[in-house]
Amino acid sequence: MRDVAVIGVGLTKFGERWSSGLKELLAEAGIAALEDANISSNDIEMLYGGTMASGRFIGQEHTAALMADQLGFKNTPAVRIENACASGGSALRQAYISVASGIHDIVVVGGVEKMTDVTSAEASTALGGAGDQEWELFQGITFPGLYALIAKRHMYEYGTTEEQLASVAVKNHENACKNQLAQFKKRISIEEVMKSKMVSDPLKLLDCSPISDGAAVAVLAPLDKARKYNDTPIKILSSSQASDTLRLAERDSLTELKATKIASQLAYKHAKLEPKDIDVVEVHDCFTIAEILAMEDLGFYKKGKAAQAIFDGETALNSKLSVNTSGGLKGCGHPVGATGVKQAAEIVWQLRGDAKDRQVKGAEIGMTHNVGGSGATAVVHIFERAD
Amino acid sequence: MRDVAVIGVGLTKFGERWSSGLKELLAEAGIAALEDANISSNDIEMLYGGTMASGRFIGQEHTAALMADQLGFKNTPAVRIENACASGGSALRQAYISVASGIHDIVVVGGVEKMTDVTSAEASTALGGAGDQEWELFQGITFPGLYALIAKRHMYEYGTTEEQLASVAVKNHENACKNQLAQFKKRISIEEVMKSKMVSDPLKLLDCSPISDGAAVAVLAPLDKARKYNDTPIKILSSSQASDTLRLAERDSLTELKATKIASQLAYKHAKLEPKDIDVVEVHDCFTIAEILAMEDLGFYKKGKAAQAIFDGETALNSKLSVNTSGGLKGCGHPVGATGVKQAAEIVWQLRGDAKDRQVKGAEIGMTHNVGGSGATAVVHIFERAD
Repeated sequence: MRDVAVIGVGLTKFGERWSSGLKELLAEAGIAALEDANISSNDIEMLYGGTMASGRFIGQEHTAALMADQLGFKNTPAVRIENACASGGSALRQAYISVASGIHDIVVVGGVEKMTDVTSAEASTALGGAGDQEWELFQGITFPGLYALIAKRHMYEYGTTEEQLASVAVKNHENACKNQLAQFKKRISIEEVMKSKMVSDPLKLLDCSPISDGAAVAVLAPLDKARKYNDTPIKILSSSQASDTLRLAERDSLTELKATKIASQLAYKHAKLEPKDIDVVEVHDCFTIAEILAMEDLGFYKKGKAAQAIFDGETALNSKLSVNTSGGLKGCGHPVGATGVKQAAEIVWQLRGDAKDRQVKGAEIGMTHNVGGSGATAVVHIFERAD
Repeated sequence: MRDVAVIGVGLTKFGERWSSGLKELLAEAGIAALEDANISSNDIEMLYGGTMASGRFIGQEHTAALMADQLGFKNTPAVRIENACASGGSALRQAYISVASGIHDIVVVGGVEKMTDVTSAEASTALGGAGDQEWELFQGITFPGLYALIAKRHMYEYGTTEEQLASVAVKNHENACKNQLAQFKKRISIEEVMKSKMVSDPLKLLDCSPISDGAAVAVLAPLDKARKYNDTPIKILSSSQASDTLRLAERDSLTELKATKIASQLAYKHAKLEPKDIDVVEVHDCFTIAEILAMEDLGFYKKGKAAQAIFDGETALNSKLSVNTSGGLKGCGHPVGATGVKQAAEIVWQLRGDAKDRQVKGAEIGMTHNVGGSGATAVVHIFERAD
């Protein structure tokens, strides 16, 4: 196994991109990433593409081959990876494996979702496919409903409050205001979150990440060849993944995501690091409760202690630990298949020192955490500036 | 890169499995494969699952994690691979890479599709997602229509006849009659194919593979550990993949699938073999014309020469080259995501000498060929009996 680096990243603006189809989004992010990596399409040996539900959103499957086609990667093998909302992170991990193993040198990992061509109800149904269709969704629960059950239990066991949940959204919107590519460049208050429409008790509209269009692309290379292309390669220190049952009812606990715990413990072990070594992290805040779980399950706080810490500002930009500087899924937007790759792009920019107004001072080590469904898949990556 | 072997395979019966959902199909094939490999779920390190359009067929995404869940692979990482009708073959290739690279030892590759819970029109629309939705399907052409264009051009350039096309279906139904797991255990005549309902000129109903439910699972291991589990491991000599544009209109030629040519040339080179060395092959006969293209593009016949050879019986069971002994997609059925893995299972049985009534005498080297869309993805594997 050899060392792997990210040598280029590219992102579209996230949001309601009504004038761009899936192909335009792929091209926009892909060209940006190739330019960032100083590489041409002829250099690409393999493409891994993350997309969750393009079949239901726009009638298009086979999206990785489409991306290779769209970017002019003539005859380059391409594979779509689908692991619900962890599709992007899972694609990144497969790309990492293919370079680390020595099978490929230059590999592109893309993520995309075009979600706003359907109604909210249709989008909600499509996203429900991330859970257990037969035992959960078909019975009438929605995807926010699953996370609402988790939130209720967390409140019951640890005294977590709705205001603490709301503080996650407030922080992430604050960060999104500093990100030109974010969907919501809009400050919100705890009061506004609390007053927003109830979606699934206790989760209100502003506790939920939005429906978004967007794409994200990263280019990987062996570390020992990375400087040929890029002066500031970002090394991937570890890449780990774990699973859990799709259905909540089968789990030992409702207040932790076991897949996150296992994946992060593997990642720390492989990188020979501890939670205290992480300077900046992008976590999977599909709902505000999800960021609280993540902070606990990734080992940054003991169970039941993260909510108050977030409320107290400990995870704001350039505080104790900078969390979701991009704005997270909540503020930056959540085009599902793109999210895991976008998280990596944000960490790359942070570790290069290119994150502008939202730069974490002296960031050396970064982490991404991408979750599929209500926690049936979790993927964790740790990155380090290579120089 | 180390040698990789298939140590176990399992298949459901293919067909209209109205009393089995996706989970039951996964469990049926998965348990059969684990038993065949003499392995328990605790030994599994990774799962790759191929599914094409489960979101549109049954509202379920995240199918690889679901399979890991269903088979009791506690917390084992799982990744769904989607490359249209080549999802199964693509999953097999990723599993091969993960074992060959030394990252994982025991890896499961599964394929599944549950297609009969929707109407034919809905299934047809879902399958159209394998082509370029925006530039082909949205304009009104169906998926059979794309292959009909290819067939028409092949007839124009090489004098291929409708009777020659029909002979592919006749041969594959003949083989299916010897396969207990096949959807159509029913002999048909050229006259019956010719008289069947026109789908898209010149392709008639019996030129088309059916809508099917089914699952297929294979277990891979490093060759040097394979005998611990199984006395007759089947070695994977090579695993190759190539892409092409999704849309037919962008290609240089309508009468060849360039991705098949490139993938097979890579596969022969890596295995140090030529077409004449292959004893048995499962090719992607989604339509009868597709088997003719495959026989040419895989190098078994010169362009324009395969159709008459098939008509003359050269590719019947235990003739010059035994092609689609399982019955192929046409006779055995085509649960899309399962097909590429089923092809591998058939070759494993042939090389073990376990193919019963359809056994190819003295089979030593086998090949699988799995195509996505109208040829935007092609995956080729070559197998050898390891003893």
